[in-house]
Amino acid sequence: MTTTLSVTAPTIDTRHLKSLQPLDIPARLLLGPGPSNADPTVLAAMNRQPIGHLDKAYLQLMDEVQSLMRYAWQTDNRMTLPVSGTGSAAMEATLANTVEPGDKVLVCVNGYFGHRLVDMAGRYGAEVSSIHRAWGEVFTLADIRAALEEHRPQIMAIVHAETSTGVCQPMDGIGDLCREYDCLLILDTVTSLGGVPLFLDQWGVDLAYSCSQKGLSCPPGISPFTMSDRALTKLNNRQSKVANWYLDMSLLSNYWGKGRTYHHTAPVNMTYAIREALRLLAEEGLENRWTRHQNAAERLYAGLEEMDLTCHVPREHRLHTLTTVRIPAGIDGKAVTNKLIDDHNLELGGGLGDLAGKVWRVGLMGYNATPENVDTFLAALKQVLTEVA
Amino acid sequence: MTTTLSVTAPTIDTRHLKSLQPLDIPARLLLGPGPSNADPTVLAAMNRQPIGHLDKAYLQLMDEVQSLMRYAWQTDNRMTLPVSGTGSAAMEATLANTVEPGDKVLVCVNGYFGHRLVDMAGRYGAEVSSIHRAWGEVFTLADIRAALEEHRPQIMAIVHAETSTGVCQPMDGIGDLCREYDCLLILDTVTSLGGVPLFLDQWGVDLAYSCSQKGLSCPPGISPFTMSDRALTKLNNRQSKVANWYLDMSLLSNYWGKGRTYHHTAPVNMTYAIREALRLLAEEGLENRWTRHQNAAERLYAGLEEMDLTCHVPREHRLHTLTTVRIPAGIDGKAVTNKLIDDHNLELGGGLGDLAGKVWRVGLMGYNATPENVDTFLAALKQVLTEVA
Repeated sequence: MTTTLSVTAPTIDTRHLKSLQPLDIPARLLLGPGPSNADPTVLAAMNRQPIGHLDKAYLQLMDEVQSLMRYAWQTDNRMTLPVSGTGSAAMEATLANTVEPGDKVLVCVNGYFGHRLVDMAGRYGAEVSSIHRAWGEVFTLADIRAALEEHRPQIMAIVHAETSTGVCQPMDGIGDLCREYDCLLILDTVTSLGGVPLFLDQWGVDLAYSCSQKGLSCPPGISPFTMSDRALTKLNNRQSKVANWYLDMSLLSNYWGKGRTYHHTAPVNMTYAIREALRLLAEEGLENRWTRHQNAAERLYAGLEEMDLTCHVPREHRLHTLTTVRIPAGIDGKAVTNKLIDDHNLELGGGLGDLAGKVWRVGLMGYNATPENVDTFLAALKQVLTEVA
Repeated sequence: MTTTLSVTAPTIDTRHLKSLQPLDIPARLLLGPGPSNADPTVLAAMNRQPIGHLDKAYLQLMDEVQSLMRYAWQTDNRMTLPVSGTGSAAMEATLANTVEPGDKVLVCVNGYFGHRLVDMAGRYGAEVSSIHRAWGEVFTLADIRAALEEHRPQIMAIVHAETSTGVCQPMDGIGDLCREYDCLLILDTVTSLGGVPLFLDQWGVDLAYSCSQKGLSCPPGISPFTMSDRALTKLNNRQSKVANWYLDMSLLSNYWGKGRTYHHTAPVNMTYAIREALRLLAEEGLENRWTRHQNAAERLYAGLEEMDLTCHVPREHRLHTLTTVRIPAGIDGKAVTNKLIDDHNLELGGGLGDLAGKVWRVGLMGYNATPENVDTFLAALKQVLTEVA
């Protein structure tokens, strides 16, 4: 059969045609929950012509990214690779690959991202149960043991660094409990990778995800993902296909592994960028990096205290990369963030969910975690507070 | 309860620590199936500091991108936006949002990407049927009517520009048939957007997707997606949540619409890049753009003919952006592509699937669709063919 379809040539419609100027973006100091500013060296690396995703020069880059991601996370996991999307895609990848319909998933919810994990797990057909703590609190081992005992899940998910609350979850003993109850442990490290101590293997974490635009100082668009051999075993024993083609690690492992089989076109320039971001992290060294973040956070705490402002989270559970500051009574929080961006080109975050209207969120992440930025922020905030008071 | 978990401080493991040089990427002329070279103006736009994904300057960019994407596709669809991933993610978004378990999906398969649509639709619980044509042929209206009559699907998917075969599917009458049989029409325009004539609304297309790294001359990592009000009605009437959180258009429409509700962090710099790519397309104008691609393709056909090389697809169904060339008997196709990249820094594609080892794939897309590039390619190929003969 060779019937040719006749093609008419319609007229081009120009109603949506806009004549625009070349891009002009305001220079912002990004001290909110993310994105943070990118390291200029990372931007320079990204600003190159793409090459093919099967070019041998690109395949070498992939190996380098995998290795440095293992260093950053302190893991030996073979399946450590960047997902071709922002952090939420890497989050979804952990559940999509491990959850089969009817699996029991337990989620520890003490902030916005715990709620999102519940929503996502349900979409993959999990029977989801959750335990809750107030926004700003952490879970204890006793909380977790009781929930594992009650629900006997196949998978438990918890957030290491809750971007919505500024809490850093202590991890000692949680991995042991998950092994005792034979369940996989998923850890959200979106706001901790590259900023605060992370020891995935020592903590017994099976799956973790992060993003590029916070502690790594790379633009958003590519996201670290890792899974242990225990998690891989669950993937390999699935009765059903992964219910998400784009994030299916059984297919992606052929591209990232020896086969180098085409799966989808990689975000080539974002890979340049994250490779450079990880290179800079390696050059600085994890210990120096973590100390730099701690120092910046402590300088911030001291400055806030001087201004009689209160941190929402008790000192021992504060996340160095992100601080929640209570909005003082009588102050319009939104007016402050608006003035900061309009008059100072400085982005500060507002509260989410249970903390909406109650806190500001101050991010000091990666390239931005410097004493100079802390001082700039404190001075700007002081000025704006007098103006809106 | 305020039990504090004690945290031990493990030693940092440096086995995965690599000391790397700053990025050094070879300069390639990308004349394969994609990515193609980015327009340098697009790279310059991308190479800026990120701003927040809720910054008013960013929200304005989003509106601009949506409007110019409507122009590029010739559609009025409100839900026209870029997906935060590469083209395969946008492909998956069309199915994820419209397919509910048990829905009948008909896929027209005449190449690699038709097969992928079958795989993806199955993962969302569709009852998938398919019709087939050899790799290099197109479907007739009679083929499609017979299949619609037999299968009575809720959704039909077809590929406009098959990147694996170099075929351009004539679209006249297909949308009318889909309306007659009351089914949604999904169109793959990955290798046609910005390169060959596309009139989504006139063709009665309900959902379409594309990529950034071909006809738009932007790096990969962000991908045009559009859905009609007919498709939105199916989404709004779903009994079940979209089985993919990251690509759920019912959530994303709140971020891209009036609410501006945070869903996921946008790939900010990729948005800068695609905004610039679409601006350049608008500046050139669709008609000039399409003519430029046609001229480059015809110059290529003439040059190949002079070298006694045969195109795989009959002239009337050739895709101007991508040409499949039959590998002559006695020539090792892989040796040719290897020599082209090693000696000429020129990327040419090999065959996929049924055409593996049988064809080369030559892409002349966006910024790369110039007579100079055609001549460079023909000269390099001529030289390499004498060397490997």
